[in-house]
Amino acid sequence: MKYTHGGDIYRNRVKWDFSANIGPFGMPKAVEEAAMRGILASTAYPDSEAEELVCGIAQREGVCPDQIACGNGAAEVIYHLAAALKPKHALLLAPTFSEYEQALHINGCECHYYFLKEKDGFQILSDILEQITEQMDLVILCNPNNPTGVICPKDLYVPLIKQCKKQNCVLAVDECFQDFLLEEDQGSFMDVWKTVDAMSRGSLFILKAFTKMYGIPGLRMGYGISTDQELIQKIKKQHQAWNVSMPAQYAGIAALKEESFADSTRHYVAGEREWLKKKMTDLGLLLFDSRANYIFFKNPYSFDLYEACLEKEMLIRTCKNYVGLDASYYRVAVKLREENEKLVEILKQVIQEKNQLHV
Amino acid sequence: MKYTHGGDIYRNRVKWDFSANIGPFGMPKAVEEAAMRGILASTAYPDSEAEELVCGIAQREGVCPDQIACGNGAAEVIYHLAAALKPKHALLLAPTFSEYEQALHINGCECHYYFLKEKDGFQILSDILEQITEQMDLVILCNPNNPTGVICPKDLYVPLIKQCKKQNCVLAVDECFQDFLLEEDQGSFMDVWKTVDAMSRGSLFILKAFTKMYGIPGLRMGYGISTDQELIQKIKKQHQAWNVSMPAQYAGIAALKEESFADSTRHYVAGEREWLKKKMTDLGLLLFDSRANYIFFKNPYSFDLYEACLEKEMLIRTCKNYVGLDASYYRVAVKLREENEKLVEILKQVIQEKNQLHV
Repeated sequence: MKYTHGGDIYRNRVKWDFSANIGPFGMPKAVEEAAMRGILASTAYPDSEAEELVCGIAQREGVCPDQIACGNGAAEVIYHLAAALKPKHALLLAPTFSEYEQALHINGCECHYYFLKEKDGFQILSDILEQITEQMDLVILCNPNNPTGVICPKDLYVPLIKQCKKQNCVLAVDECFQDFLLEEDQGSFMDVWKTVDAMSRGSLFILKAFTKMYGIPGLRMGYGISTDQELIQKIKKQHQAWNVSMPAQYAGIAALKEESFADSTRHYVAGEREWLKKKMTDLGLLLFDSRANYIFFKNPYSFDLYEACLEKEMLIRTCKNYVGLDASYYRVAVKLREENEKLVEILKQVIQEKNQLHV
Repeated sequence: MKYTHGGDIYRNRVKWDFSANIGPFGMPKAVEEAAMRGILASTAYPDSEAEELVCGIAQREGVCPDQIACGNGAAEVIYHLAAALKPKHALLLAPTFSEYEQALHINGCECHYYFLKEKDGFQILSDILEQITEQMDLVILCNPNNPTGVICPKDLYVPLIKQCKKQNCVLAVDECFQDFLLEEDQGSFMDVWKTVDAMSRGSLFILKAFTKMYGIPGLRMGYGISTDQELIQKIKKQHQAWNVSMPAQYAGIAALKEESFADSTRHYVAGEREWLKKKMTDLGLLLFDSRANYIFFKNPYSFDLYEACLEKEMLIRTCKNYVGLDASYYRVAVKLREENEKLVEILKQVIQEKNQLHV
């Protein structure tokens, strides 16, 4: 099994990890304390229904508990969605998060791609609608997209919802990074779906996670919401009775109360992202319009930036294994100012050392 | 989704839970501390390969790391085994742990049963070999069996291994409760498999968990071992990149060092089990030969013992939803002496109250 993600601090010598898109402030104290209480409670099986957590999420999201399926991280929910639907054909963005394709492949699905183009700034355009043909059973969007951070234009939401209904295909939208968007950039497909007349809207599935905003990737806690309760039932049938651990349930319940933490993180990250963008642009790197807590860019110089950074014990995300990208593309997380300064310093250093830039 | 297991302390008013088969001493202090450190480390993604844990397990089990697949509890591994093999026909014991059947069903497998008979003390007999026909792709044994606690006769190990090879079917043995058996009752199919000549032995899959002996059902940590590395690769492909949480990996690594805890728990439990058996037999209950950390019995009186105990805020496991059993069968966990005394006291009380026993 080849590992195709960021965050592999286990097989690399790393002082600074910019390869995983986790919020810069770690986990809120109350979430950490709740997770600790979850350890003490772990001599019992976790609630197989995760009832308290599900009810809390339902309240926050404005849906019924029966519309929610919790998972051992959002990644698990992707696998159960694929297993529940068993689509024959699915449309994915390219590039996008690679777990969708892996989950679909093991369920015998053929993946088709809507190729995002550099000349369009990796933005989804309305020609995606033409690719949602009768053949498709599932469309997966990632909004904001990973690794690009580019958001889906809002005027495409309704056409996408209607086109999926017309072709009788499920629309799944991974909104795991929505939490990091500034208010003006935010926009859940669920909110828009509710405004579309009932005859013109089909099954919508939204993926969300606590992992990124609340800094708990190690605890594994994500969920799916669907307008189709039967789909949720099918998803729940794909897994064992106790898929969300006790610490994850406790941490999730606590995280629901951390709205002001999320607010301030969102604004801090937006500020740092813009600061970093300017610094990185000054280094000659080609940046795209990420609105998320990570920056996607192209290295115009002819050397391997990933390896060069790793020599300095800094891990960045090479994007060479994404469908539609090559080794000139990279992604870095937005972290605390001190860390971001380190990122700029090392990037500058390796670019200078490679004698590509004379500043 | 109907919950079909013990341990549902979330939707019942319970002071004493005898329905979940967890070791009586909770989690060892070192495991708890490790899990706590796992919380602090959870701001990073867990190691997707769980390398340190896998290497530790490999060393203990005397196999290669490539022969091990870790899971979010042993239950997850069952689902991935079923998804990896996609058997058309499988042979299961009846009664046995119900997650096998659920995992097989969603993968389109038809389940056949070897019915364990009360008159044989729910023991596997050699006639099981006749049911391992050419049609079978998978045989799942649970040894000791859950809910009966009865062990598979050792003289059947080799014939079972050979018959499965002959019929080209995978033999899966759930050994999750082996840890609780006294030395003379223990016996892994893996050890015996190694002694069979290479031409006569096929694919063996063993399931194990840290959940029960180390008291961490809430953390979710189990694993599978196979003689077939390709099967392990296939199993790993069935899941997301990060299926074992950070606290679970930390706790698992710590648990590997707790051999003396396991030894003393094993002997304590055996003593308490025999004490409880005598007391329960004295109450007129019909007991079977469990060698594990739980007791399986039949209530000869015509009332619902589960409901009667629940009225006293004590949860026991009704076995009415097991294939091959009915509402007269029950299972209780062996716990600490004080708790076991409470169990006997309440059983005695409800039996007296129902005027079935005049003592």
